[in-house]
Amino acid sequence: MPDLLWPGDHHAGDILTDVAILDAMLQVESAWSAALVKAGIAPTDAVVSVDTLRGLIADGDIEGIAEEAESGGNPVIPLVRRLRDGLGSSTVGTWLHRGLTSQDVIDTALMLCIAVGFDAVRIELDAQVGALLHLADDHRHTRLVARTLTQHAVPMTFGLKAAQWLHGVLDARGQVAGLTFPVQMGGAAGTSAAVAELSGRGADAGPIAVQTGAVAADILGLAPVAPWHSVRTAVTRSGDAAVGCTDAWGHIANDVLVLSRPEIGELSEGSGGSSSTMPHKANPVLSVLIRRAALSAPPLGSTLHLAAADAIEERTAGAWHVEWDALRTLVRRTVVAARQTSRLVAELDVHGDRMQANLAGAGAAVTSEQESMSTVVGHAPGPEYLGATQQYIDAQLARARRVITEGA
Amino acid sequence: MPDLLWPGDHHAGDILTDVAILDAMLQVESAWSAALVKAGIAPTDAVVSVDTLRGLIADGDIEGIAEEAESGGNPVIPLVRRLRDGLGSSTVGTWLHRGLTSQDVIDTALMLCIAVGFDAVRIELDAQVGALLHLADDHRHTRLVARTLTQHAVPMTFGLKAAQWLHGVLDARGQVAGLTFPVQMGGAAGTSAAVAELSGRGADAGPIAVQTGAVAADILGLAPVAPWHSVRTAVTRSGDAAVGCTDAWGHIANDVLVLSRPEIGELSEGSGGSSSTMPHKANPVLSVLIRRAALSAPPLGSTLHLAAADAIEERTAGAWHVEWDALRTLVRRTVVAARQTSRLVAELDVHGDRMQANLAGAGAAVTSEQESMSTVVGHAPGPEYLGATQQYIDAQLARARRVITEGA
Amino acid sequence: MPDLLWPGDHHAGDILTDVAILDAMLQVESAWSAALVKAGIAPTDAVVSVDTLRGLIADGDIEGIAEEAESGGNPVIPLVRRLRDGLGSSTVGTWLHRGLTSQDVIDTALMLCIAVGFDAVRIELDAQVGALLHLADDHRHTRLVARTLTQHAVPMTFGLKAAQWLHGVLDARGQVAGLTFPVQMGGAAGTSAAVAELSGRGADAGPIAVQTGAVAADILGLAPVAPWHSVRTAVTRSGDAAVGCTDAWGHIANDVLVLSRPEIGELSEGSGGSSSTMPHKANPVLSVLIRRAALSAPPLGSTLHLAAADAIEERTAGAWHVEWDALRTLVRRTVVAARQTSRLVAELDVHGDRMQANLAGAGAAVTSEQESMSTVVGHAPGPEYLGATQQYIDAQLARARRVITEGA
Amino acid sequence: MPDLLWPGDHHAGDILTDVAILDAMLQVESAWSAALVKAGIAPTDAVVSVDTLRGLIADGDIEGIAEEAESGGNPVIPLVRRLRDGLGSSTVGTWLHRGLTSQDVIDTALMLCIAVGFDAVRIELDAQVGALLHLADDHRHTRLVARTLTQHAVPMTFGLKAAQWLHGVLDARGQVAGLTFPVQMGGAAGTSAAVAELSGRGADAGPIAVQTGAVAADILGLAPVAPWHSVRTAVTRSGDAAVGCTDAWGHIANDVLVLSRPEIGELSEGSGGSSSTMPHKANPVLSVLIRRAALSAPPLGSTLHLAAADAIEERTAGAWHVEWDALRTLVRRTVVAARQTSRLVAELDVHGDRMQANLAGAGAAVTSEQESMSTVVGHAPGPEYLGATQQYIDAQLARARRVITEGA
Repeated sequence: MPDLLWPGDHHAGDILTDVAILDAMLQVESAWSAALVKAGIAPTDAVVSVDTLRGLIADGDIEGIAEEAESGGNPVIPLVRRLRDGLGSSTVGTWLHRGLTSQDVIDTALMLCIAVGFDAVRIELDAQVGALLHLADDHRHTRLVARTLTQHAVPMTFGLKAAQWLHGVLDARGQVAGLTFPVQMGGAAGTSAAVAELSGRGADAGPIAVQTGAVAADILGLAPVAPWHSVRTAVTRSGDAAVGCTDAWGHIANDVLVLSRPEIGELSEGSGGSSSTMPHKANPVLSVLIRRAALSAPPLGSTLHLAAADAIEERTAGAWHVEWDALRTLVRRTVVAARQTSRLVAELDVHGDRMQANLAGAGAAVTSEQESMSTVVGHAPGPEYLGATQQYIDAQLARARRVITEGA
Repeated sequence: MPDLLWPGDHHAGDILTDVAILDAMLQVESAWSAALVKAGIAPTDAVVSVDTLRGLIADGDIEGIAEEAESGGNPVIPLVRRLRDGLGSSTVGTWLHRGLTSQDVIDTALMLCIAVGFDAVRIELDAQVGALLHLADDHRHTRLVARTLTQHAVPMTFGLKAAQWLHGVLDARGQVAGLTFPVQMGGAAGTSAAVAELSGRGADAGPIAVQTGAVAADILGLAPVAPWHSVRTAVTRSGDAAVGCTDAWGHIANDVLVLSRPEIGELSEGSGGSSSTMPHKANPVLSVLIRRAALSAPPLGSTLHLAAADAIEERTAGAWHVEWDALRTLVRRTVVAARQTSRLVAELDVHGDRMQANLAGAGAAVTSEQESMSTVVGHAPGPEYLGATQQYIDAQLARARRVITEGA
Repeated sequence: MPDLLWPGDHHAGDILTDVAILDAMLQVESAWSAALVKAGIAPTDAVVSVDTLRGLIADGDIEGIAEEAESGGNPVIPLVRRLRDGLGSSTVGTWLHRGLTSQDVIDTALMLCIAVGFDAVRIELDAQVGALLHLADDHRHTRLVARTLTQHAVPMTFGLKAAQWLHGVLDARGQVAGLTFPVQMGGAAGTSAAVAELSGRGADAGPIAVQTGAVAADILGLAPVAPWHSVRTAVTRSGDAAVGCTDAWGHIANDVLVLSRPEIGELSEGSGGSSSTMPHKANPVLSVLIRRAALSAPPLGSTLHLAAADAIEERTAGAWHVEWDALRTLVRRTVVAARQTSRLVAELDVHGDRMQANLAGAGAAVTSEQESMSTVVGHAPGPEYLGATQQYIDAQLARARRVITEGA
Repeated sequence: MPDLLWPGDHHAGDILTDVAILDAMLQVESAWSAALVKAGIAPTDAVVSVDTLRGLIADGDIEGIAEEAESGGNPVIPLVRRLRDGLGSSTVGTWLHRGLTSQDVIDTALMLCIAVGFDAVRIELDAQVGALLHLADDHRHTRLVARTLTQHAVPMTFGLKAAQWLHGVLDARGQVAGLTFPVQMGGAAGTSAAVAELSGRGADAGPIAVQTGAVAADILGLAPVAPWHSVRTAVTRSGDAAVGCTDAWGHIANDVLVLSRPEIGELSEGSGGSSSTMPHKANPVLSVLIRRAALSAPPLGSTLHLAAADAIEERTAGAWHVEWDALRTLVRRTVVAARQTSRLVAELDVHGDRMQANLAGAGAAVTSEQESMSTVVGHAPGPEYLGATQQYIDAQLARARRVITEGA
């Protein structure tokens, strides 16, 4: 159900919803059961499929699980209780969740879900790279006045402005592409003692325990790493990447918001938003909503860092719990803003005539620097005053083309 | 539906859910219709009851409204469209929402909803005042070692510790009690031009417009004030008050978390939380969850301030939109933490024997200051070293009793 | 020395500089010595004047004190060591700092210093109230187009815009006026045990200890309250009030930034800022710098709340230490922004001709709502469309006049 | 002069002080003059050395520059004025700063200065890697009780705890090692129009302008990139890396703070901090101060992201200005915390006897999981219950050794 107070939220669809997270927890439990079997720890009939587990959780259960989560502080405890109740004293029931701790399940499930979120973001970033590449190239000679500190500065072209947006989007894409999503499989305190004990292999148990985690990671498509219960880099880097995206998109939205002001009129959104009382109004709604996301993201990223900085001992009391919803909210909003930005840049109307008129109207404000430069060197001002505009456009286009052809 | 990733969320019940906010919007539209009639602007059959409006919105509509909210940037536009569709060309349909703007409806609806949230918080604060008053009084002579920067300092009593918790809770209660929740009724740009125009009263229209807003405020139980579309004090003060609460509760939770460590053992939660893998474990879950809220609240309050600081012209682009969910989340979490703190302090187990043992075991660490004071004045150390402990307890008890008897 | 990276910092002068804080610490130690004597605890020759203490600290000492502060975690320890070294075994030397703890000295010194800061802020707020009152009154009929979500909405007057700025400033002033600055005098763990012990009065010692703190408060001009080592309301409320100010000023600056864009041209700063390379440029520098402060303040306020929420036991490890510089920075920047805002509103140039022209140029965009209202009621549109503009202006003017005449 | 309110600040020495930043600005101007000459734009006698420029700025000038910075909003304008006054109408004076804008000078100077800061951080990170490697290896068999949510969990070894600290430090080191510090050389609006104009090369001027920036970058030891006036990735990534460091160190400090509590006593700082009133006290001061930094860093990083998200047009009004001091403060504090953490881990006292005693005293709490696992598989519990502890230690040691041998 989309958030009524976050217009556009439906673009994030099922990503990181309560249902999706619960399902990811089932995937974790299933993968772990398979890993226990593959490692020779559990008997072969201890494997439980995700579908079997899904069959044990009715639609109405999620509310009960959420309520019961309070008594132990997390939803895994009531979930596992329900699953065990459903499985009874079968081999599967006996082996379910053996060797795991709640944090393993939650951290791994969140990694599964944000990986899906960042996949969606990446698709949009690629679309934006394509759209901005064309905007920058098509308008490489469309002149407009540059503005610094709100005032007219010197001439530039709209292609360069689009190239600067592209610059930010490429930076964000690089950061997202560099993310890895690790499995968390460490048991009660990150020693994998329980799974080792279950293996009954004495001195050889350690390597087997490590291997079991790696198998689970492989099944889930996550990176196999040592337990990170109190080392939250995977979370903070994801948060930083998300905020890096909304930074880049905020920049675009800010430019559209100001350049679509009626007195300026150089840009307009493809389809403006309506008003509940003023029939004539066409608001730059996508930009408004993107800017909203860009303002909201940094404090969420900061909350994740604070949680990391408050890490203590083998499981953090409170700061770990604060991560869950912050990470979910941040990533969902990033997906929404990704989609809105793709649409914004794809549908953007560029009004070259108004750009030309405003530039002409700026008068001495935009020629004064050139004149003072001419004075320094004593020769007549050149015909235009665009410097390395084409080179700077080309620099970003080249980066964009590498991304498109090599996926780099 | 409680948030799976915020254990305890069910304590906030319906407060500030999408359904509650939508319903509050219907209350706003209904009250406004009544105010238009009362002011003699609309004909008497233009009044529409909340129940009539509720009858026009089916359960399934909320999802559609949420999705359609994107095109205009807020949910009021699709809501009003549905209501008008339902009401047709009747007098009620003609007059619905006339003179209002989306921001009026959203801001007023949010104020209605957070007022309910703070009522719930106030009830819990009062319960906490009562419980802490007894803890402080009952344990005014229960000695324990004070700890500064994690290390043993000098003796104190647990009653003083509880009085310090009470100190914070009373401060928070004072801030909550001082909140007012204003109506927002200004029309498209805060001039009330539309309602004045509708009144057809020429030069007299201004006062009538003001009066109409006041009537609506009265119906809704909110404070009548001049429009505040870009002056967000009502929002930031509410946010500050909520954060003030979680600050006070965080302090209590932190003390419980450390004093219930097994090596210290001076406090324990009435009913400890369980573990998914370790049967013997009793975690201080309420404290963990309260601390979580206290860590998450300051950035949410900061987001509200940033939105206020970014206010521009007659409606802010983006920063206004960021307020809605931040305010909702902050207030709901405050309600949840309120309930959890009430339970924590009501059920807290105080282990005076361990306090005594730890104090005795602290040895020279807790007597060194007293000895150096004795050296200064040249007389023998007194029998205990508690200074104004009783006076400081009594100071908070006196404040608490005033609150209880006078509701002050 | 003003901060090179915070242009305008010199307006905060000596407020909350290291030198000022060190001096405030000396005032605290002096007041405490006088209070000990007045309470009959110390002999009359134990009083030490601030000037005497100042004489013991050479200009070069502050650097050494700052460096040595690391070993104990705060600057009071090396300061007291230096003072005792200077005073030797005299009565004054023997009694100096007896009964206090480092946190008493730091908290009280910070309260003294921020009180000075808020005095400076209040003077500026009063000046702004006066200037905005005139702007609102003088321009109550100067028409311009209201803008919502960056687009033209309906007509309003500049007087109403100024009245909305005034609205925010009056709210901020109310919050600042409500602040109290308490003394912190609790000894090692907030029990005042040391001073009670020094009094040698056995069972009567508690009240004497309380009284000693009250006397010190009186000498320093601070509020006498029970110790608040781990209850940080005095700090967070000050922070909230500071952020409340920058919120109000940010709103003004944002409006000036956009309305002084060359394409709009409705406002301009009295004296625009220059450029290092473009001779013709006149940037709205005051607004830029005020907006800067408004963006920077919320996270600082949030840091203070986080510190409050992390309070633990009788002295907080780390979170207390993080308050000092955050509070200093926040208050200094608030003083700077206060001064800049006073100048901005006092010198603001209002271009009524451009307002008129932009309103005329807006065309159908600003008349569409009025037309649709006329359709509802079936009479011709009124001559203007300003609703309760005058009433809303008068509401703020009335508040402002009450403040001016009653200081309320 | 070290910050009195940030004990330990002196460890950051001259890094990012006002003096250092001013000097970096002189380096930028000097490098630019050399680049202009090398590119054949300016005559050979237009080169000015840093020393010559330093000779034009007296010690007392910095205060005046700081004050005058307000009128244009940044310190470059009064600095360049002073330099030109000093150089007069000489060739050097004529060419100084030609083609640059204030933002070029400030951004590049800040990059130069934070590069120095991160060099200092990297040295400390390497030292920490070395110290933690030894701690982890030496104590790989030193058993202690793991603690989750403050309560006893299962056995682990202190070597694994140290390996987890190392895990975080290695992550942070990787992030710091990946930083690049770009030059900013774009002129008034990022087109390099002025320098192109000065070159007098018409159509060929663009590449020459690009080349000039690259030469300046080479001289300064920074990365040559296209202008990034409104694309702030270089700033936000630096901020994220700094916060990543303090996250890792905060985790260590938190563990030391709790394990050095007198009731636990498993760790202690090499040299405890003193108290101003309690002679016996030995506070874990380094940990307190490191935790302080870890709590303060996330909001500073968030401020940098907000500034990036607020980027607009060719120079951002306000949000750019907010970066300067936030970045400076964040990096300086990171340097200080780096040094304190190096000392903390180098001098840490590990009390294996207390670890053993606490583990023994934990009783059933730490054996219950093992027993329930034994029940599952039906064989007797193994002699210890440490699972893959050795493997997880070795995983981090291997990473550490790669860093040490390859500098990777």
